[in-house]
Amino acid sequence: MLSCRVVLVRPRDPNNIGAAARAMKNFGFTDLAVVAPYAPVWTEAVSAVNATDVLTSARVCDTLAEAVADCTLVVGTADRTRVEWKQPLFTPVDLQRELSANSHRLALVFGSEKHGLTNDDLSFCHRVLSLPTAPDCPSMNLGQAVAVCCYELSRDEAGRSAAPVVTAAAGELETSLKLMLEVLQLSGFLLPGNEPVRTRKLRQSLLQAQLSSQEVSFLCGALRQIKSQLEKGTHET
Amino acid sequence: MLSCRVVLVRPRDPNNIGAAARAMKNFGFTDLAVVAPYAPVWTEAVSAVNATDVLTSARVCDTLAEAVADCTLVVGTADRTRVEWKQPLFTPVDLQRELSANSHRLALVFGSEKHGLTNDDLSFCHRVLSLPTAPDCPSMNLGQAVAVCCYELSRDEAGRSAAPVVTAAAGELETSLKLMLEVLQLSGFLLPGNEPVRTRKLRQSLLQAQLSSQEVSFLCGALRQIKSQLEKGTHET
Repeated sequence: MLSCRVVLVRPRDPNNIGAAARAMKNFGFTDLAVVAPYAPVWTEAVSAVNATDVLTSARVCDTLAEAVADCTLVVGTADRTRVEWKQPLFTPVDLQRELSANSHRLALVFGSEKHGLTNDDLSFCHRVLSLPTAPDCPSMNLGQAVAVCCYELSRDEAGRSAAPVVTAAAGELETSLKLMLEVLQLSGFLLPGNEPVRTRKLRQSLLQAQLSSQEVSFLCGALRQIKSQLEKGTHET
Repeated sequence: MLSCRVVLVRPRDPNNIGAAARAMKNFGFTDLAVVAPYAPVWTEAVSAVNATDVLTSARVCDTLAEAVADCTLVVGTADRTRVEWKQPLFTPVDLQRELSANSHRLALVFGSEKHGLTNDDLSFCHRVLSLPTAPDCPSMNLGQAVAVCCYELSRDEAGRSAAPVVTAAAGELETSLKLMLEVLQLSGFLLPGNEPVRTRKLRQSLLQAQLSSQEVSFLCGALRQIKSQLEKGTHET
């Protein structure tokens, strides 16, 4: 069985949360995480009479980074019209191809009903999945988008790879990103004005690169050495 | 484009009617017929602020027979546990096969939220489509079931992959590798003993990462900055 976590970021409607959980259960998925829900909304969703066990056992996280830290493939969802950023778009077919080529702990991330995922949210995603909706009505209801994605993921289990995971987890990449940012700050490449954009860009490049755990620890070793050398220079000045 | 009418039989919840119409529009379908809706419910659905043109132009019929009279393939939907009747079950794959083999005016028929399609309703259907839901949670929400079916019907045209990103040429990668090696030498991470192995390792990681030209020039910018900072430190010593 495919390991897939559904992550709802800042959901605003208890009915949609319930519908998302129901759709997961319809297609055999049980791992739900919710990021920064509005407390009264979350309470209402979980205490609804038709709340599923998926919902009552969901994990509530403060940040998206926390919700996907152990996942090796983080896929954000967005309609094509909203992705301003130059991130490669995944179709459902691309996703199936990736899942049959490599073994993954997958997270599927959905934004709030009103605004979807922000550019900052998307920077935590390896890929952006766009369902092939009509140009004149691209934006789907949250519960329905979760239903379609869960359906799509459950429709072909056979061809999946059982090879062991070698891809670094999102948490390992964040560790290397943190070191990288420190080095770039020390060297003056990161300035208050460009920091948010460059941070997102770097995170994206790291995610796209699909590095192995081994490569990430090599990278961290190199970065630590550069950092200590830069700090030495700074102290000597 | 496939000709497909969605038929809702005795729907009871205005939200579900609206959600069904929205999902149709998401996947490019516009032909909606409603059979014997409860009048106040129907009025509420059509007059909702977010009512789509699909909804306002829907045809209201007294009977299912009337709603599907001009269709050549009428497909009822039901979860497997509810079909007592000895009617051959269609999977989504079977439906795709039939639609690619023969030209059809298709009707997809959905029952009421509470009871689904009756045996009498099903008798008007050429086939019964059952979505592959989990045995412990087989019954889908109406709006979500319509979304999944419309998605499935539109997916053939959707299979095309998004445009590929322009991958950096090997020469660009070598330029960035050269800079990287200079930085690592300046910081003492590369030593005569480990240099050949680490250089090969870095080159491999760069190649595997399939960076875009844009990412490579960003990388080179960062490396140049680090390098100049490291050289400054060295000269000041």
